[in-house]
Amino acid sequence: MLRYDGIPLYHQLKEIFQEKISSGEWPPGATIPTEGQLCAEYGVSRGPVRQALDRLAREGLLARKQGRGTWVRAEKMEGSLGRLYSFAELIEQQGLVPSSHVLTFEKAAATTSVARDLALQPGEFVYRVVRVRFASDEPLIVETIFLPVSRVPEMERDEVEQKPLYSILRSEFHIPLLRARQYFEAVIADTWEAGLLQVKPGAPVLLLRNIAYTTGDVPVVLSRVIVRGDRLRYYVDHSSEPGDSQSTELATP
Amino acid sequence: MLRYDGIPLYHQLKEIFQEKISSGEWPPGATIPTEGQLCAEYGVSRGPVRQALDRLAREGLLARKQGRGTWVRAEKMEGSLGRLYSFAELIEQQGLVPSSHVLTFEKAAATTSVARDLALQPGEFVYRVVRVRFASDEPLIVETIFLPVSRVPEMERDEVEQKPLYSILRSEFHIPLLRARQYFEAVIADTWEAGLLQVKPGAPVLLLRNIAYTTGDVPVVLSRVIVRGDRLRYYVDHSSEPGDSQSTELATP
Repeated sequence: MLRYDGIPLYHQLKEIFQEKISSGEWPPGATIPTEGQLCAEYGVSRGPVRQALDRLAREGLLARKQGRGTWVRAEKMEGSLGRLYSFAELIEQQGLVPSSHVLTFEKAAATTSVARDLALQPGEFVYRVVRVRFASDEPLIVETIFLPVSRVPEMERDEVEQKPLYSILRSEFHIPLLRARQYFEAVIADTWEAGLLQVKPGAPVLLLRNIAYTTGDVPVVLSRVIVRGDRLRYYVDHSSEPGDSQSTELATP
Repeated sequence: MLRYDGIPLYHQLKEIFQEKISSGEWPPGATIPTEGQLCAEYGVSRGPVRQALDRLAREGLLARKQGRGTWVRAEKMEGSLGRLYSFAELIEQQGLVPSSHVLTFEKAAATTSVARDLALQPGEFVYRVVRVRFASDEPLIVETIFLPVSRVPEMERDEVEQKPLYSILRSEFHIPLLRARQYFEAVIADTWEAGLLQVKPGAPVLLLRNIAYTTGDVPVVLSRVIVRGDRLRYYVDHSSEPGDSQSTELATP
C-alpha cells in the first residue's frame, strides 16, 4: 500500500485512512484500530501514523479522546450552491434543529467596504448583527450581517433571533431577495471565532461573503460568514450549455 | 472605532485592517504603519495589534519580513464557479504564465472510493497523476487526478505536463467533458502539501473534489485539488428562476 516514491509516509497513510472513512469501511461512530495496530498493519513506525491521525482529527473526520481511543465522526453536512438554501433549511434537512444566538445588534455607520458592497455612502447607517447559528446545540457558523437602516427602519433584535432574515425582509418590509453573489475562501479560525464555534484556534473554516440584491438589482444584505470546515462542505454542479461556444465543453480540470 | 462589547480587541483590529486593505486605503504593495504607530492610533497595547497582523499574514493579506516591515500582498485571484475554467485559463486572465510539474504518473488499482466516484470495479486500473500547478513560478495548487485506463489506454506523462487534460481527452480520445460536480471544503495544508505550495504547515487551503462526466453521463475524471487559500478565492452567482416556486426567492442568509 505504501508505494508512492517521493510522497511522505504520513501523507500516504492519511489518504489510506480517508479512503477507509469515505468507503464506509470505517463507518461513522466506529472506533478505529489503535496506533499500535495500525503500525503493525502497515509496517511503519508510530510517528507517521500519529501524524496522519492528528491531521484527520484536525479536519474533523476523526475524534480522539484520552482513554477512549479514536473514532469516526458523523459525515460533514453538505450544502448545495445550486441555489442558496437558508441555513435553517440546511440544518433541518439533516434532521437537526436550527437555532440562533444574537451576540451584537446595533446601528452603526457603514465603513468604506460595507458601504461599497451595499452601494451606500460611507457613514450611512446600517444594522450590524453578529450571530452564532447552531444545529441541535452544536455551533456551526458565526455570521455578521449588514443591512441599510434606511431600508428596514424598524427591525428588532428579537425578530432576528427568531425568524429567517429573508422572511422578515419579504413579509414585513416587502423586500424580496432576487439575486445573490457568494464569495468563498479558506481561512483559519482566530481565538474568538474558535471559542464561539467550539473548535481549536487555527482550525480550518470557510469565509463566505454574500451580497443579496432586491428589485432593481439593489444590494440590500451583506453577510460575512465563518463556517466550520470540520462540519460542512458545499458542492456545485456545472453543465455545458449547448449553443454557447464558451461552455459547450467544460474546461476541467 | 473599538466599540463592540464582547468582541475582543484583536478581532476588531483585524476587521479594521481588513477594511483598509479591501477599501484600497492600504493598496497592494504598500507598506503599512508600524506596530507602534498602530498602537498609538488606536490607543491599544502591542499584543492585540500583533495578533491582528499575524492573523492577516497567515491568511495571505499581509506579508511581513524582518527589517522590511509589513506590506499588503497582491489581491487574491478570483475564480468563477459559474462555469468551470481550466486552471490555465484562470492564470492567464491574471496576466500570469501557467505551468505544471508532474510529480507522479502511474497506473494503479482503483481504491474503493476512487472506484465509486468513477463507477469502476475496485481494482480496475486508473492513471494516478499528481501535479503542482504554477502561476509565473508561484505554486498555487496540488492536484491528484484519476482516470480509467480502459478509457484512455495510451496517455503519456509528457502530454499531461504540456496540455490541458480536457483537450487531450477531447482531441486524442474523443471524450468530451459535459457535466461536472465540484465539492468544496476548508482544510489545512499538511507538511508535504505546504512544502509544495511554499506556505507554512497549517495554512488554510481549499480542498476541491471534482467529478467530470462524458457522453451518457459516465464519470471519467476524478480530481482532488488542494488550493492555496492565501492566493485564491471563488465566487458563484445565484438568481431566482421565475416559475420555480422553490427558488423564486433566495432563501438567504
